[in-house]
Amino acid sequence: MKPVLRFIKNSAPTEGIRCQILAMAIAVLATCSTPQALRAQATGDLGLVVERASGSLLVVDQSDRASIGRITGLGDLSHASLVYSPDERFAYVFGRDGGLTKVDILAQKIVRRVMQAGNSIGGAISDDGRLVAVSNYEPGGVRVFDTDTLEMVADIPTGCKTIGLVDVPGTKFVFSLWDTGETWIADLSGDAPQITKIPGMGANPYDALVTGDGRTYIAGLFGEDHLTALDLWQEHPKPQTILPGYAKGREGLPVYKMPHLEGWALAGHDFVLPAMGQHEVLWVDARTLKETGRTATHGQPVFAMARPDGRQVWVNFAHPLNDTIQVIDTVTKKIIHHFEPGPGVLHMEFTPRGHEVWLSVRDAGKIMVYDTGTFEKLREIEAESPSGIFFTARAHKTGL
Amino acid sequence: MKPVLRFIKNSAPTEGIRCQILAMAIAVLATCSTPQALRAQATGDLGLVVERASGSLLVVDQSDRASIGRITGLGDLSHASLVYSPDERFAYVFGRDGGLTKVDILAQKIVRRVMQAGNSIGGAISDDGRLVAVSNYEPGGVRVFDTDTLEMVADIPTGCKTIGLVDVPGTKFVFSLWDTGETWIADLSGDAPQITKIPGMGANPYDALVTGDGRTYIAGLFGEDHLTALDLWQEHPKPQTILPGYAKGREGLPVYKMPHLEGWALAGHDFVLPAMGQHEVLWVDARTLKETGRTATHGQPVFAMARPDGRQVWVNFAHPLNDTIQVIDTVTKKIIHHFEPGPGVLHMEFTPRGHEVWLSVRDAGKIMVYDTGTFEKLREIEAESPSGIFFTARAHKTGL
Repeated sequence: MKPVLRFIKNSAPTEGIRCQILAMAIAVLATCSTPQALRAQATGDLGLVVERASGSLLVVDQSDRASIGRITGLGDLSHASLVYSPDERFAYVFGRDGGLTKVDILAQKIVRRVMQAGNSIGGAISDDGRLVAVSNYEPGGVRVFDTDTLEMVADIPTGCKTIGLVDVPGTKFVFSLWDTGETWIADLSGDAPQITKIPGMGANPYDALVTGDGRTYIAGLFGEDHLTALDLWQEHPKPQTILPGYAKGREGLPVYKMPHLEGWALAGHDFVLPAMGQHEVLWVDARTLKETGRTATHGQPVFAMARPDGRQVWVNFAHPLNDTIQVIDTVTKKIIHHFEPGPGVLHMEFTPRGHEVWLSVRDAGKIMVYDTGTFEKLREIEAESPSGIFFTARAHKTGL
Repeated sequence: MKPVLRFIKNSAPTEGIRCQILAMAIAVLATCSTPQALRAQATGDLGLVVERASGSLLVVDQSDRASIGRITGLGDLSHASLVYSPDERFAYVFGRDGGLTKVDILAQKIVRRVMQAGNSIGGAISDDGRLVAVSNYEPGGVRVFDTDTLEMVADIPTGCKTIGLVDVPGTKFVFSLWDTGETWIADLSGDAPQITKIPGMGANPYDALVTGDGRTYIAGLFGEDHLTALDLWQEHPKPQTILPGYAKGREGLPVYKMPHLEGWALAGHDFVLPAMGQHEVLWVDARTLKETGRTATHGQPVFAMARPDGRQVWVNFAHPLNDTIQVIDTVTKKIIHHFEPGPGVLHMEFTPRGHEVWLSVRDAGKIMVYDTGTFEKLREIEAESPSGIFFTARAHKTGL
């Protein structure tokens, strides 16, 4: 744009160049008339939906309950997740194939893309928005990139698969090691990463979460019948056991689907956890980390997600019961609503203040929008095999 | 824009109209080159700073630590506050003079302005973004407006001054009555407001807050030596006394400045409250509502605000000690930093994930930006008598 304007300003418009100006002006008009350049677009109510089969992202608008564009060419998006820049303009997409892609949600296009590993499993963005970290299965370890350029600024090898990577305040990242049962805290605020290693988390941590205040890190363990927590506010955080033997004395059901721990949520005074291999969700006091109750559910929960105010918990289930959603009331811990949105309900995302929820119904090829007060369906939006839904409000939160 | 494009498409460009097209195209170019129309501006990291003396708003960018524009003509902005639309594009500004002004932060201009009362004291926006409510001293009561048009959709007279107006989930607003000591819950989800009245809150509630989950409403009382809480998740919420006789046995200091309760914050397991008429902040267990500690401070606290992760509490003070900030560590409840940014520190706003804080230093005519980890000053920004600072991330939160 700038060269064109300079040319017009500096030249006397004779008949000869008038045509050139005209042609350029019309070209500029054409540019202006695209939605990206012309429309004054606020980004606070936008979002991206992962379309795993086609390697694309659907750009959506919460207020209009509509899709407003599609970004293609993102490679293997099975198990993909993403984080947002602080201005809610750019998304960093972590593909299963090791691809790290920076997407401009305003221009609806890919800005940069690097293949940073052979097999990756999620990432996080630092509190200052300068760094994005990726957790890798192959070759293992964590790699940290500049959010502007996607150049690698730190490589943290671990010798094994890393899981449960989250950001915490102070330009720090926390993650766990599958093979050694350690949790590492990487402080990236200085020139070189400072690593603190915490052993004794337990056998084979497979996923983890951090609370919204960045204080409590909880790891799920594949090799033990309990979970492990860390209080990151302590000078030297020590592993604490949660829910020891929670499945003891009961025949373990086959694990159709590993529950996702990023779905764990604070609801009222409790954390709500999907029980691994059981048809129930578990309630744990957020302070004492003691069990406070169990709610029997329709199937093996995959995500147990609290509405942002914590008053309701929405649960979806593993195959073959993944056509169903149950809603639990936090005060009574009872199921207050049960419905079947359609085949393959893979993910849920609440509007930031919780009045609506969006569901990915993969095998129906639809996103469905519901009112969380009346449970009324408000809208269906076409999407190609939708999975994860990510609203831009995540930019303002720790640990997502 | 659209008529111009249509004209070009439908006409054969003969020499005669070519000049018209050229002129129009250049006019369009000029339009395109204004920052509003051309620049792809994400809104997630923007904010507004109230310039009370000049009745203007400074538009600021958190990532650039810079002011990027000014919006004028907002009338009396002493004690002004504002809320944001869910897309983080529009702000609704509540002026002390009863003015309600809708501002477009992308176009940097006033969209609509109505004088809705003689004297107003804050407002709130519903969870669905459809309604904005204003709390009035004169003529009293609460008035509710459509956020698109600013047309009044509900008038809720109370016969007296109303204070402590907040939004809670379910398209509801909660507020208290100075004269009668009642709290009212107004449900605006249907055609007509449904009002629930809760008497017995105590004498002369002067301000109130609701927790981020919309569950606990706490009113400060001018006529009593305690505070009163409501659990809004109960079917019939009952007033509970907090901190009875907290100033008993001690000579009350003159109240230079009423503490602002919207500054109350959840830090770790506790609420942190500025003590009225005392040189201290009070810590109250967020579950039991019992006092857990007191921290002696430099002066009478005005705002005691938790960093978003709750690990620090930043406190400013009433005149004549309002050149100072103290920072308290939540774990030890001890002051860990004391500094004097300059004369008239009126307000603080944290970046959404808490790595930086912006301070209004009114009598220095500056906003100052600090790193909350190192306490280093990162930037000074010129402003005309700045007071309240409001970042767009507030759009995604309940009760702010």
